Amino acid sequence: MDMKAVYRYIDQHAQDLIQDLAELVKQPSVSAKREGMQECAEKVESMLQETGFSTRLLPEKDGNPVVYGELKSKHSKKTLLFYDHYDVQPPEPLEEWRFDAFSGKVHEGRIYGRGTSDNKGNIVSRIKASEAFLKTIGDIPVNVKFVVEGEEEIGSPHLKPVMKQYNELFSNDATIWEFGGTNYEGRPEIYLGLKGVLSVELRAKGAIRDTHSANAPLIPNPAWRLIWALNTMKNDEEQIMIEGFYDNVQQPSKEELQLLKEMPLEEKKLKKAYGLKEFLQGRTGYEAKKELLFSPTCTINGFLTGYTGPRSKTVLPKEAMVKLDFRLVPNQKPDEIFEKLVSHLKGRGFSDIETVQYGSTEPTKTPVTDPFVEIVAKAAEKVYEKRAVVYPTSAGSGPMHLFRNLLGCPVVSAGCSHADAKVHAPNENLTIDGFIKGTKFMATIMNDLA
Amino acid sequence: MDMKAVYRYIDQHAQDLIQDLAELVKQPSVSAKREGMQECAEKVESMLQETGFSTRLLPEKDGNPVVYGELKSKHSKKTLLFYDHYDVQPPEPLEEWRFDAFSGKVHEGRIYGRGTSDNKGNIVSRIKASEAFLKTIGDIPVNVKFVVEGEEEIGSPHLKPVMKQYNELFSNDATIWEFGGTNYEGRPEIYLGLKGVLSVELRAKGAIRDTHSANAPLIPNPAWRLIWALNTMKNDEEQIMIEGFYDNVQQPSKEELQLLKEMPLEEKKLKKAYGLKEFLQGRTGYEAKKELLFSPTCTINGFLTGYTGPRSKTVLPKEAMVKLDFRLVPNQKPDEIFEKLVSHLKGRGFSDIETVQYGSTEPTKTPVTDPFVEIVAKAAEKVYEKRAVVYPTSAGSGPMHLFRNLLGCPVVSAGCSHADAKVHAPNENLTIDGFIKGTKFMATIMNDLA
Repeated sequence: MDMKAVYRYIDQHAQDLIQDLAELVKQPSVSAKREGMQECAEKVESMLQETGFSTRLLPEKDGNPVVYGELKSKHSKKTLLFYDHYDVQPPEPLEEWRFDAFSGKVHEGRIYGRGTSDNKGNIVSRIKASEAFLKTIGDIPVNVKFVVEGEEEIGSPHLKPVMKQYNELFSNDATIWEFGGTNYEGRPEIYLGLKGVLSVELRAKGAIRDTHSANAPLIPNPAWRLIWALNTMKNDEEQIMIEGFYDNVQQPSKEELQLLKEMPLEEKKLKKAYGLKEFLQGRTGYEAKKELLFSPTCTINGFLTGYTGPRSKTVLPKEAMVKLDFRLVPNQKPDEIFEKLVSHLKGRGFSDIETVQYGSTEPTKTPVTDPFVEIVAKAAEKVYEKRAVVYPTSAGSGPMHLFRNLLGCPVVSAGCSHADAKVHAPNENLTIDGFIKGTKFMATIMNDLA
Repeated sequence: MDMKAVYRYIDQHAQDLIQDLAELVKQPSVSAKREGMQECAEKVESMLQETGFSTRLLPEKDGNPVVYGELKSKHSKKTLLFYDHYDVQPPEPLEEWRFDAFSGKVHEGRIYGRGTSDNKGNIVSRIKASEAFLKTIGDIPVNVKFVVEGEEEIGSPHLKPVMKQYNELFSNDATIWEFGGTNYEGRPEIYLGLKGVLSVELRAKGAIRDTHSANAPLIPNPAWRLIWALNTMKNDEEQIMIEGFYDNVQQPSKEELQLLKEMPLEEKKLKKAYGLKEFLQGRTGYEAKKELLFSPTCTINGFLTGYTGPRSKTVLPKEAMVKLDFRLVPNQKPDEIFEKLVSHLKGRGFSDIETVQYGSTEPTKTPVTDPFVEIVAKAAEKVYEKRAVVYPTSAGSGPMHLFRNLLGCPVVSAGCSHADAKVHAPNENLTIDGFIKGTKFMATIMNDLA
């Protein structure tokens, strides 16, 4: 159909978009602190209801409810699912915010506040895109489902059981994921996958109490145990040496490698932002992009043992611990990698080291050749009038695999954010222009999928 | 001379010993907190003056004064120097003390309080041993000097400059060091040396801010840098692999090895106290003792990077640091070892790692064959009526080298403490019996040196 009326509706209702977003931003919903979760879920549910969606709050013991909404098209059998989250990162440090973190303050063409870009702006944008159809043509071009969870920022611990329990609600033909926006050049960016992640902790123990380091010839030092164990896990050329670690790594397809060539990487900007002369291992250009998207990693997140205050203390610590995460790529499985880690340590003589598995998510990707990818990319190009940057996958992680791997639908991430959005940081913001364009973009996807 | 009158005087004045010790214990003197240092120095000075010593407080900029005392014998040209310290370790955790840490409370044959065994009991004991001679024979058998410093527990940072400035005051024929006592079998223990120590910190830096671990393929991880660097410094067979580290290590003499054979090591008790099934590398018996006394070590004292709270955080830390100490044996020099460490890191490709040197002390030993060793051992056996355990050296460290290496005098450590003294821990104590016997022991040394 001709989208002009829909676009005009969106333009004319820019103030409603901003007000609805401000209302959501003013409701704190920090999942890490269980702050305002139920209230925010109910606000999202109301917005969906007011637009015409049938809604449910899907509860799960100890979890924040998942807001579910659906609206049937009169003519289409196709279903588009929007995955979003109403929870936000903690706003701290508060003193670095120019405007109150929960204000939704408009200033010089931007809306400021925790959650504006990640992810409340997208929630409003997607609801308003639906509304624009309903108010102009009295129908929506495809069936639309909303899944808005409240625990994305803490690793989505309850999403899988909710999806299992309410399995029939989640079926869809295509899913739009929660994040995306435009890059520094104003080109829309869309993402076809996420890495997986496995978080672990290794713990070593020595004597039952801290002792004087004069005893070093007799008392085992748990910190040295971890040093030696870690050294067997990754060498200084960044190769992970856990036996079988790379076994199931799927090599990128030729279409993915082609996209990689076209993908911009703002090397200078990034190096400046991180204060680096060069990237790890001197990586640059195509190699840097390939490593970033397609290589699994093993990162030390934290290490603690003994005395860490000023100057020195001749102590021999009783215990030491290290936290690590592995970023995984298709088709590595977090549980398998954990087992390989445990046997690696055992095989290398470190069975005294305790291994604890924390959260994990699986890697996932939608093939570049899936028709939905072209629908989204073309929709973006119509709205932004610039070529879309299609990332064959992303270096980040999230529960996308629950949709892609379990439901089998294509999943593409795209949204209304922008390159200076300061997501997870003070002064998070969304440009009004991006908010409006992003809403038209979502409407176009709905139309084109039909 | 016949020591009976002196011993009797000591026995008859047991209450004075206890009262004088209580007075010193009641005066907190925690060098780590600069708490009551001047006051305690003046109390020690008064006790020396009241006994008949000429005294001086030797100041040094930013340091706690060294209490100096001397008393000439009418007949002897020989000089015995007592090295002690009036500062104590912090008493924390206070809630684990049965009696107030600064009470000097007497209970069931013991005196409780911070400093009772380490080292105020020895100060009082040595002053009272001098008094016993003066009050019974009107003279002391040898010239006696006291050097009581106020910074032993923080690494004696100002003792060397004080000794340099007041060089002429420190000459002596033999020095009795600050620590010693009886073991679990009631045998007196004396020590002929100390290991040296070199404390360092290694620091690695990555990006200028903590970043998301999704960036791991591009951003260097300072924690991994330290892991790999440390792994080149010591292997899992406890061999220190810094080039030239063992170059100047003096092998133990046949007399020292002989003493080692006779030296008891309470393996079962120690393992139980430390909660260990076995010692490091399965060391036991002669080998364990030899390693403990004659091997240099490299100990990780602390390591800190990134997120160390509950569960997991996918952070890539901007910096990492590790604190290490090296225990050194004659004739290793701390400064040389530090240089070797720096070149080792450079040579192994870790010149990005910053190296910071904190305190250091040199190793030192008095030869087993020095006549003063036999004087002290025999004096102990007369008083305790048990064979002395002569440790050819000790696994600990201290400024003994300033006396032994710079002044050239024999230095033997012996004192009035005991096996359950809880030095540096809550409920530090001294047995009254050990206090009295230790005082007789000191008097006997004075007599026999003459």
